Amino acid sequence: MAGGNEHHLAKTYTWPDFKTALDFVNQVGAIAEVEGHHPDLFLAWGKVEVTIWTHKIDGLTESDFVLAAKIDALPQY
Amino acid sequence: MAGGNEHHLAKTYTWPDFKTALDFVNQVGAIAEVEGHHPDLFLAWGKVEVTIWTHKIDGLTESDFVLAAKIDALPQY
Repeated sequence: MAGGNEHHLAKTYTWPDFKTALDFVNQVGAIAEVEGHHPDLFLAWGKVEVTIWTHKIDGLTESDFVLAAKIDALPQY
Repeated sequence: MAGGNEHHLAKTYTWPDFKTALDFVNQVGAIAEVEGHHPDLFLAWGKVEVTIWTHKIDGLTESDFVLAAKIDALPQY
């Protein structure tokens, strides 16, 4: 996942349709539950924008990078 | 679903946690596939923002209101 600015990590994943994008959201959701850390997810037809940061400090911590790496290791289209 | 402006319909649904919000996203996704019309969905911990419009005309058509009504009829927290 490419770094955004100092405040958050953001990446857009593209998919061939809504259903495959939604499947990705569910895979990300499963990782988030395991990690106990949850991204923001913007789902539109054929794409998912993932945004990660630590709300408590309004910035980035190690768990943000761990979550981002695990999401980015998911199968992509 | 409350009307937004003339351009789109938008409503935020709140949930007690990430998982219930994600469950709602999946229910909306199932409706969208049946209707053949797909909203934009912003999922964050405890909330889902639904935005609906018809891209082809960059405005609202009957199918937007049908989709919005079906989503709004889903069980809410």
